[in-house]
Amino acid sequence: MPGELFRRLVAAAGPVWPAYTRHEFVLRLARGDLPEAAFRRYLVQDYLFLLHFARAWGLAVYKSDTLAEMRRAQRLVAATLDVEIGLHIDYCRAWGLSEAAMVVEPEAMQTVAYTRFVLDRGLAGDRLDLEVALAPCVVGYAEIAAERMADPATRRDGNPYREWLDMYAGDEYQDLAREAAAALDARFAARGGEGRVPALAASFATAARLEADFWQMGLDAAR
Amino acid sequence: MPGELFRRLVAAAGPVWPAYTRHEFVLRLARGDLPEAAFRRYLVQDYLFLLHFARAWGLAVYKSDTLAEMRRAQRLVAATLDVEIGLHIDYCRAWGLSEAAMVVEPEAMQTVAYTRFVLDRGLAGDRLDLEVALAPCVVGYAEIAAERMADPATRRDGNPYREWLDMYAGDEYQDLAREAAAALDARFAARGGEGRVPALAASFATAARLEADFWQMGLDAAR
Amino acid sequence: MPGELFRRLVAAAGPVWPAYTRHEFVLRLARGDLPEAAFRRYLVQDYLFLLHFARAWGLAVYKSDTLAEMRRAQRLVAATLDVEIGLHIDYCRAWGLSEAAMVVEPEAMQTVAYTRFVLDRGLAGDRLDLEVALAPCVVGYAEIAAERMADPATRRDGNPYREWLDMYAGDEYQDLAREAAAALDARFAARGGEGRVPALAASFATAARLEADFWQMGLDAAR
Amino acid sequence: MPGELFRRLVAAAGPVWPAYTRHEFVLRLARGDLPEAAFRRYLVQDYLFLLHFARAWGLAVYKSDTLAEMRRAQRLVAATLDVEIGLHIDYCRAWGLSEAAMVVEPEAMQTVAYTRFVLDRGLAGDRLDLEVALAPCVVGYAEIAAERMADPATRRDGNPYREWLDMYAGDEYQDLAREAAAALDARFAARGGEGRVPALAASFATAARLEADFWQMGLDAAR
Repeated sequence: MPGELFRRLVAAAGPVWPAYTRHEFVLRLARGDLPEAAFRRYLVQDYLFLLHFARAWGLAVYKSDTLAEMRRAQRLVAATLDVEIGLHIDYCRAWGLSEAAMVVEPEAMQTVAYTRFVLDRGLAGDRLDLEVALAPCVVGYAEIAAERMADPATRRDGNPYREWLDMYAGDEYQDLAREAAAALDARFAARGGEGRVPALAASFATAARLEADFWQMGLDAAR
Repeated sequence: MPGELFRRLVAAAGPVWPAYTRHEFVLRLARGDLPEAAFRRYLVQDYLFLLHFARAWGLAVYKSDTLAEMRRAQRLVAATLDVEIGLHIDYCRAWGLSEAAMVVEPEAMQTVAYTRFVLDRGLAGDRLDLEVALAPCVVGYAEIAAERMADPATRRDGNPYREWLDMYAGDEYQDLAREAAAALDARFAARGGEGRVPALAASFATAARLEADFWQMGLDAAR
Repeated sequence: MPGELFRRLVAAAGPVWPAYTRHEFVLRLARGDLPEAAFRRYLVQDYLFLLHFARAWGLAVYKSDTLAEMRRAQRLVAATLDVEIGLHIDYCRAWGLSEAAMVVEPEAMQTVAYTRFVLDRGLAGDRLDLEVALAPCVVGYAEIAAERMADPATRRDGNPYREWLDMYAGDEYQDLAREAAAALDARFAARGGEGRVPALAASFATAARLEADFWQMGLDAAR
Repeated sequence: MPGELFRRLVAAAGPVWPAYTRHEFVLRLARGDLPEAAFRRYLVQDYLFLLHFARAWGLAVYKSDTLAEMRRAQRLVAATLDVEIGLHIDYCRAWGLSEAAMVVEPEAMQTVAYTRFVLDRGLAGDRLDLEVALAPCVVGYAEIAAERMADPATRRDGNPYREWLDMYAGDEYQDLAREAAAALDARFAARGGEGRVPALAASFATAARLEADFWQMGLDAAR
């Protein structure tokens, strides 16, 4: 069954995982009562985040051993630069945030921490280390949105954040996340071994913790 | 005038530059009397070369400071993986070389030397170092093909290598090379300074020398 | 006069610089009324910080163009691993913190943010980028300690943090910082240019901001 | 038994391994009838090689996960920069080659190929990839010298290359090589898995092939 490594990493992360995926930011977003200031802060920083995310997939192109691995990394650079950043810019515009305003915004410490942690894992380690550090984001967002959409407490009508939930709960993103989880297994088969699991689990848990800090940064902006 | 840094680097390389751009391999290819064995050897190794070339542009995505720089590097990953490798595979097939056969061929020392030299310049240095090390290839091939097509000694009709010359002398590739030369100037404006010129010139000259060794590897296969 | 680039970067950082060098943590440490919990938190995270700091100088060995540059980076790896971490461990022991306890402590987000930011600057850019990102720490600590020791408000007798101030205000560390500032100038002469200054200044300011966040993390532990 | 991974890699390399370790250059060096021009060429290029070798161990400092791994990499940077390059310079001086003359010598393609291949393996992969690519050199030289010293065909008295054989057959270097082989096993336990063996074996074989090319470059200089 695809996603085996991902599930092991989630299990090993223990309470760190739901502290990220069921963070108050997410629960309130789903209920529709997240303060707008929190969401705006998140949107701006997520734009800055995506720039480094695209750099991480560029690094994965460099770290590829085969043409197939290279093409997958290339697709994810394209998904980030051509689709996700584009959607993000459109979406932010609807929230009154222009790209010009976002690009000059200083990166929050939380944005720096998670993005550079991922890049360092990718450069100090190999492509498996890189993809494991990216997984809480790539695969985690799909899990978060799916879980929220299945929750009766989630407000569907009149929720100002509905579009966000629909995007990540939608088929396209869910497929991308499933492929990413399957790619983790393929990478683990090619480059893994039980000896690596503790270090990979520690790295995954740190990434999840830094993602939770990222949500918290949004909430803090509303105080 | 665009291409100023490129012209300085060519001038600084002295006789190393024409030893590459007017290498016997190139002159005989243009006259149509290059031994087939030499060209086949070149084709196979150039396929392996392109895989690392795509990795170098992936690295450039990682090493980008702005979205515009990232998108340019992304276009060059795509140009390599989607267009150039594709054309190469088609072209090689016409010469009786299948992709399956090429992918298992061991890399020649000459292929290793130039490709890994470029990647090391890119990782040890910055994006300017990377693009300077790539320039003898990216911009050099356009100069080589244009120069040959302008030479009366070049055989146009019945030249088995005519397609190769047309591809690199064609508008599409000439535009790509002009943009690459302009990008070198832009990068030098943003990250350069006269103090860097000697090291950049040394790196460019080494890259040109390794490219000449690459032609020679082709010729040697015909002995 | 040595340290010219450093002074330009400090000037360009504006109020970000004193917000780091005269952070409340530092002022209270000098007055001797910093809560012990704040200092302990700082000590543990600084130990984890130093491990990545040594990695950064290892990276500088890789990024060296000459034997002299390599030997300087090697000396800084040794200064970190053989001297600074050793002193730190001794010092922490006196504060009741064992190395075994520190090594299993999770890295604070603030520690991740600054250390990985530095490493990313070093890998995405060149050695000048790396040393500029390290400068707020290497040169900044010398400035901080010297400034505090020259301040009449600093309590010398009976200050529980006196040893920390003495270490960084001492000749050995002040020399190391002076050399680091001179090395920045040498690197700028070899690899710089006015075009690079805005990006270097932005990187320096971000590093200083992340250092201030690191002090704040200490203070927050005492709340 | 230490060295298990190393022995698997040697076995997988098949005839590529003795083509390196029993290369004509080595056999003639042991018999004492290697042309001086061949040895001089080797010495100069080996000096240039060692500079990149030190960079590779600097990279290993960066790629360390623990303080123990970092200290081992640091010792190898020191062994290269403080001991091996120093001995090399002394030794070369006895052969009439000054350091000033060597440092301006252009790198041979063979030197570029092996050194940059190693660095790329280290950056594209993880520390296991890096150490496997270094092993044909680090561990291989010990095997080469020990094997030659045990061979009755080796001329001990009056062999102008006796000092070279003694250095690499001596206890100090043999210990260093044994530790390197043991470190490979430790790294494989921590980061390996059977799935990695084919790629590691391919990388090891390429490195051994590039080392054989390096000997051949020496011989070619005597023609």
